[in-house]
Amino acid sequence: MGLVLAAGLGTRMRSPLAKVLHPLCGRPMVRWVVDAVQAAGLEPVVVVHHQEEAVRAALPGVRCARQEAPRGTGDAVRAAAAALPPTGVVVVVPGDVPLLEPAVLQALLSAHGDALCTVLSTVVADPAEYGRIVRDGERVVRIVEAAECTEEERAIPEVNAGVYAFDARWLRDEVLPALQPHPPKGELYLTDAVAMAAAAGRLQARCHADPGSLVGVNDRWALALAEDVLQERILAEHGRRGVTFHRPATVRVEAEVVLAPDVEVDPGAVLRGRTRVAEGARIGAGVVLEDTLVGPGAHVLPGSVCEGAEIGAAAEVGPMAHLRRGTHLGPRTRVGNFVETKNTTLAEGVKASHLSYLGDATVGEGTNVGAGTITCNYDGFRKHRTRIGRDVFVGSNTSLVAPLRIGDGALVGAGSVVTTDVPPEALAVARARQVNYPDGALTIREQFRERARHPPGDEEEG
Amino acid sequence: MGLVLAAGLGTRMRSPLAKVLHPLCGRPMVRWVVDAVQAAGLEPVVVVHHQEEAVRAALPGVRCARQEAPRGTGDAVRAAAAALPPTGVVVVVPGDVPLLEPAVLQALLSAHGDALCTVLSTVVADPAEYGRIVRDGERVVRIVEAAECTEEERAIPEVNAGVYAFDARWLRDEVLPALQPHPPKGELYLTDAVAMAAAAGRLQARCHADPGSLVGVNDRWALALAEDVLQERILAEHGRRGVTFHRPATVRVEAEVVLAPDVEVDPGAVLRGRTRVAEGARIGAGVVLEDTLVGPGAHVLPGSVCEGAEIGAAAEVGPMAHLRRGTHLGPRTRVGNFVETKNTTLAEGVKASHLSYLGDATVGEGTNVGAGTITCNYDGFRKHRTRIGRDVFVGSNTSLVAPLRIGDGALVGAGSVVTTDVPPEALAVARARQVNYPDGALTIREQFRERARHPPGDEEEG
Amino acid sequence: MGLVLAAGLGTRMRSPLAKVLHPLCGRPMVRWVVDAVQAAGLEPVVVVHHQEEAVRAALPGVRCARQEAPRGTGDAVRAAAAALPPTGVVVVVPGDVPLLEPAVLQALLSAHGDALCTVLSTVVADPAEYGRIVRDGERVVRIVEAAECTEEERAIPEVNAGVYAFDARWLRDEVLPALQPHPPKGELYLTDAVAMAAAAGRLQARCHADPGSLVGVNDRWALALAEDVLQERILAEHGRRGVTFHRPATVRVEAEVVLAPDVEVDPGAVLRGRTRVAEGARIGAGVVLEDTLVGPGAHVLPGSVCEGAEIGAAAEVGPMAHLRRGTHLGPRTRVGNFVETKNTTLAEGVKASHLSYLGDATVGEGTNVGAGTITCNYDGFRKHRTRIGRDVFVGSNTSLVAPLRIGDGALVGAGSVVTTDVPPEALAVARARQVNYPDGALTIREQFRERARHPPGDEEEG
Repeated sequence: MGLVLAAGLGTRMRSPLAKVLHPLCGRPMVRWVVDAVQAAGLEPVVVVHHQEEAVRAALPGVRCARQEAPRGTGDAVRAAAAALPPTGVVVVVPGDVPLLEPAVLQALLSAHGDALCTVLSTVVADPAEYGRIVRDGERVVRIVEAAECTEEERAIPEVNAGVYAFDARWLRDEVLPALQPHPPKGELYLTDAVAMAAAAGRLQARCHADPGSLVGVNDRWALALAEDVLQERILAEHGRRGVTFHRPATVRVEAEVVLAPDVEVDPGAVLRGRTRVAEGARIGAGVVLEDTLVGPGAHVLPGSVCEGAEIGAAAEVGPMAHLRRGTHLGPRTRVGNFVETKNTTLAEGVKASHLSYLGDATVGEGTNVGAGTITCNYDGFRKHRTRIGRDVFVGSNTSLVAPLRIGDGALVGAGSVVTTDVPPEALAVARARQVNYPDGALTIREQFRERARHPPGDEEEG
Repeated sequence: MGLVLAAGLGTRMRSPLAKVLHPLCGRPMVRWVVDAVQAAGLEPVVVVHHQEEAVRAALPGVRCARQEAPRGTGDAVRAAAAALPPTGVVVVVPGDVPLLEPAVLQALLSAHGDALCTVLSTVVADPAEYGRIVRDGERVVRIVEAAECTEEERAIPEVNAGVYAFDARWLRDEVLPALQPHPPKGELYLTDAVAMAAAAGRLQARCHADPGSLVGVNDRWALALAEDVLQERILAEHGRRGVTFHRPATVRVEAEVVLAPDVEVDPGAVLRGRTRVAEGARIGAGVVLEDTLVGPGAHVLPGSVCEGAEIGAAAEVGPMAHLRRGTHLGPRTRVGNFVETKNTTLAEGVKASHLSYLGDATVGEGTNVGAGTITCNYDGFRKHRTRIGRDVFVGSNTSLVAPLRIGDGALVGAGSVVTTDVPPEALAVARARQVNYPDGALTIREQFRERARHPPGDEEEG
Repeated sequence: MGLVLAAGLGTRMRSPLAKVLHPLCGRPMVRWVVDAVQAAGLEPVVVVHHQEEAVRAALPGVRCARQEAPRGTGDAVRAAAAALPPTGVVVVVPGDVPLLEPAVLQALLSAHGDALCTVLSTVVADPAEYGRIVRDGERVVRIVEAAECTEEERAIPEVNAGVYAFDARWLRDEVLPALQPHPPKGELYLTDAVAMAAAAGRLQARCHADPGSLVGVNDRWALALAEDVLQERILAEHGRRGVTFHRPATVRVEAEVVLAPDVEVDPGAVLRGRTRVAEGARIGAGVVLEDTLVGPGAHVLPGSVCEGAEIGAAAEVGPMAHLRRGTHLGPRTRVGNFVETKNTTLAEGVKASHLSYLGDATVGEGTNVGAGTITCNYDGFRKHRTRIGRDVFVGSNTSLVAPLRIGDGALVGAGSVVTTDVPPEALAVARARQVNYPDGALTIREQFRERARHPPGDEEEG
C-alpha cells in the first residue's frame, strides 16, 4: 500500500488553493504522486484534510482517509490506520513530491526486505535543513534532524527524502499506538517511527542518487521548476515517438495531450487540456490550443488561439485566428488572419480568410466568406443562427443579421447589411449608390482644416 | 565608499550606446552595479566620461566624477580623488559587472581588515585572459597578468575579478600620486596599486567561489546571458512570494514590475516598465504589458499587447487585443479579439468583443459595442472624441464619425455610418434597403467569368 | 577526402523524410555535416541511397556515390570506392552528427600520422551501447562492441564516436576487398576495418573530451536537442557581432538569416529562411519573419507575422500585423494592428493603422488608409488590382471593389463601397443618409425581448 500525505494547506504557496491541488502540466500535484504510487504497483490511500472535497474530486476512484485536524505526519498516518493492511509493506509518500518516479519506489521496496523501516535517502550539495542519515559503515544508525546535528553530523551529505517503507504490522500495532505528541503544537511525528526502528536495530536507508526527483514543492518557484522537469519528461517522450519540437524548452504540452508521430511544434506553442493532434499536422509559433482536435496534415499558423475547436484534415488556420468552442472546420477549410469563429461549422473547402466574425453560423461546402464579414448573432437578448449555403460568395465588409438564411449559390454584394433571407442563386445588395463629387475633397479638407483652426473643444491630441 | 568605473564606451558592444547604459531587465547596467554597492552599505561615486550626461541621468541622486580622457583604470580612480574619503576603505568596482551581489562586496569588506589592498578573486575553469593570484600557502604574493605568466603560473585557476578594496588614505596619498603612465597609450593602471600593496606585503585576496556573479559584460552575447541570470533572480523572488510561472525561462519580467501574490503568468509573457499586476490576475501566453496596471482577478488572454493601459478588476482582455496609452477599462469590462483601444475609457461592464477600433472614446456602463465598430476619430487634421452613453447597443460594422455623441439607451443599426448625434433611446440607422435580385448571382458570375476570360490587363495572379 | 554516410532512412525518426534530410535551424542535417567536412579542408563525398534525389538536391555541387542497397557501413564505404583517393587520408563521418565541429576533424587528422586507422573517441558518463576503446597504457589495443564486453571492459568510459581517419590506399586496396558479410542480414561492418588496423598494430584513438558535439541524432528528441545546440552557436555568433537578444533560449534564428549590428530581438521571435535585418531594427516579442527584409531602424512590433515581405527604413509594423508575400513597405510607412497586406506596395509615409486588408494594391505617398478598409480584390474568379494615389484619405470601414483607381488627393467617405474610379481631388461617398427614430430603440428592444420570449426555434444559447 502507498500512503500519500495530502492533508496540508501549504501556506508558503500563498494561495487560496491547497498545495497538493496546484496543477503541474494541467494535472493536480497530488495526482502525479498517486500515479507514481500506482505505477509502482502499490494501492494508493490518500490522507486528506484541507479542501478535502476538492482533493477527493481530483482523485476519482482513489481511496482517501480523513485526518480530522492537522496534527503532524504521525497523526496523518494514524488517520489512515483503518486502511493499513495487516501484513506486508506500507510506503509513505508526501503529497508534494510530484517528480517522484515509480522506479524509485520500486527500488525502495526491493531494498526493504524484512526491515521495520527503510528510509529513502539522497545526496545533496547543501543538506542544510534536512535530516542526516548517520551510518556506521553501511549500517544506518539513526537519522538526526538538522537542528540537533553535531558539527560532524552536519557535514553528512546523505539526507532523508521523507519517503518511507514500513513493515505494515509493526507500524499499525506497535508504532501508531506509541506515538507521543511533541510540544509546542502537540503534533505526532513520523520520524519517531524511524527512531523506533533504529532503536530496534532494523532501520535501513536506500540512497537514490538524483535528488532532483525527490524535491518537495513548498512555494511557487519550486512549483515552476518542478513543472519544467515534468514538461521535459513529457516532451522527450513525444519526441522519441516522432514529434519534432523547435526550442522544446519554450513549449508547453500538458499531460493529457495526445500527439501523433510526424507532428511538428514550433516555439512557444501551448497545448492544453484534451488537445489531440493528428499525424503530419503543424502547430505554429505561439499557438495556444485548448481541448482542440487538429486533423491530419492541418496547419495552425502562428499566434492562433483555439479553444474547444475541431480542425479538419489539411485545414489551414491563422495566423492570428481565434477558434472558440463549438467550432468545426471541415477538411481543406481555411480560416485566416483576424478571424474569430464560435459555435460555427464550416463545410469542406470553405474559406474565411480575413477579418471576420462567424458566430452561431453554418456554412456550406465551397463557400467564400469575404474579408470583414460579420454575423450579427446577438440582438441584445438572444443569439441567433446564420445559415449560409454551399458555393455562396459573401462580399467584403458584409453584416449578416441573424436569424438569416442565404441560399446555395447566392451572391452578397460587398458592404451589404443583409437582414432578410437570400434565395438560392440570388444576388443580394444593400448598398447606397456611389457619388463622386468633383473637387469635393478640396472643399471637405478646407472645412476640416478650418475646424482644426477653431476647435469646438471636442478634439483630442495625438 | 564604492567607486564605480563607468567611463568606458565598450567598443565590442558595437553600439552607439555606451556599454554601461545598455539595459538589463529594463535597468541600465551601471544601475545594477550602483544598487549593489549601495545595498552593501557603501556610498557610490561613479566615474563618468563617455556619454556622461546620459550616465548621470541614469543615476539620479548619485555622485559622479568626470574623467577628462579615457586614460586607464588608474586615471579613472585619480579622477575621483577629490571624492575619496580621508580614511576608511574604498571599494573599486567596474561598471560592467551587473551580476555582482551585495553579499560578495560585504564579504570583501569583512576580509579587508587593515590590508592596503584586498583583491576579489574567483576560480575559473579556463583562466586564459585573467590575472592569476600567486599565493605562497595562504599568503598572496602578487597578481601576475596572463601575458606575463610562467608555465606554472598559467595553471593557477584563481584569478583577479577586478574588484578591489583599498585603504583609502594609502590609495589617495601614496598610490595615486605615484602611478606612472604605461606605453603605448600612456594609461595609468590600477593593477600598479595592487603591485604596490604586494611590495609592502599587505596584499590580500578574498576568493568568491562562484565566478558567474563576477562576470564582466563585454559584448551583446554576454549581455544576453547576464540578463538571463538577473531575470532568473527576479522571477525566483516573485515565485517565492506567490506568483505562478509556467515555463519561467521564457518569461521576461523587468526589474520595476510589481506582481501581487496569486498572479499566474503563462509562457512567453513580457512584462515591462512600471507594470503592476494585482492579486489573482492571469497573464496569458505571449502577452506583452508595458506600463500597464492589471486589476485583481483580471484576465489578459494570449497574444494581447497593452501599453500604458489600466485594466479593471475582473476585466477580460483578448486574446489578441491591443490596448494603447490612455486606455481605462472599468471593472468586469470585456475587450475581445482584434480590438484596439486608445485614449479610451470603458465604464463597468462594457463589452467590445470583436474586431473594433475605439480611439478617443468614452463608453458608458453596460454598453455593447458590436463587432467591427470603428470610431472615425481622425479627419486628416485632428482627432475627435466619441461619447457613447450607458446601455447603448452599437450594431456590427458601424462607423462612428467623431465628434459624436450617442445618448443613453440608444440603438445603432448594423452597418451604419453615424455622422450626427443620436439622442437617448433613439434608433439610428444609416443603411440602404436590401434588394434581392432573383438569379442575379448567375448573371454576375457569368460577367466575372467572362472578364476572367478576357482580362483587361488589370488582374493579379494568386 | 571526407566520406559522409547518408544512405540510411532512420526508422526511429518515424518520418516519411529520410533522417539526414530533417532540417536543423532550416538546413538539412547532412548539410551541417558536409559543411563541417569542407570547413576542415576535406573534399566531401556523400554516400546516398534512401531518397537519393532529395539528398543530392540538398547538397548542390557536392559529389555523391550511390549505395545500391543498405548493406551496412562497410558496404557504404565500398560504394564510394571509385571516389577514394589513391593515397592520403580518408575521413569517414556519419551523416547524422550535425554538431560535429571542423576543429575536431582537424585534430583527428593531425593525430592520424601514418596510422592505418585513427578512431575519434570520447568519454561519456553512461557508455552503455557504445564500442569501448581498450587501451594498454596509451596504446589502443582494440575496440570492443558493447555486447561483447567483459565485465572490466564494460566499465571503460572511452567510447568509439563513429568517426574514423583511414589510410586511403590501405582502405581501398586491402580493407574493402576483404570485408565479409555478417549474419543475419549479410551486412559489411566498417568496424572490421578497425579490427584489421588493430591486428596490424596500427590503430589509434584520438579522444575528444566533449561528447556533446559528437552526438548522433537517432530520434526527434535528439533532433530537438541538437537544434538547440546549433541555435545557441548561431545566436552567440550574432551576439558577439552586436545583436542584442532578450531571453536568447526562446529565440529561433535559422542558419541563413543575416542580422546587422545593433539589431534587437525580443523573446520568442522566430526568424526563418532568407530573412535579413538591417542596423538598428527591432524585432518584437513573438514576431515571425520568413524570407523578409527589414530596413534600418524599422520596428516590427509584437506578434506580427511576415512572409516574403520587404519593410522599409524606419517603418513600423504591428503589433499583430500580417505582411504576406509581395508586400513592399516604403520608408516611414506604418502598418498597424490587425492589418494584412499581400502583393501590395505602400509608398513612403503611407499609414494603414488598423483592421484592414490590402491585397493587390498600390498606395501612393502620404496616403492614409482608414481603419477597416478592405480591398475586394477577388471576384470569385480572378484577383484585381487597386491603385490608390498619393495623399488620399480613405475613410473607415470602406470597401474598395477592384479593379479600381483612386486619384491623388481624393477623399473617400467612411463606410463607402467604392465600385467605380474616383478622380483626383474628388470626394467619393456611397452611403445612406442617417435617420434617427426617436424612441426607436425602445420599440426595437421590445420586439427583440418579445422574440426572446417566443423563440421561433432558431436561437442559439451562449
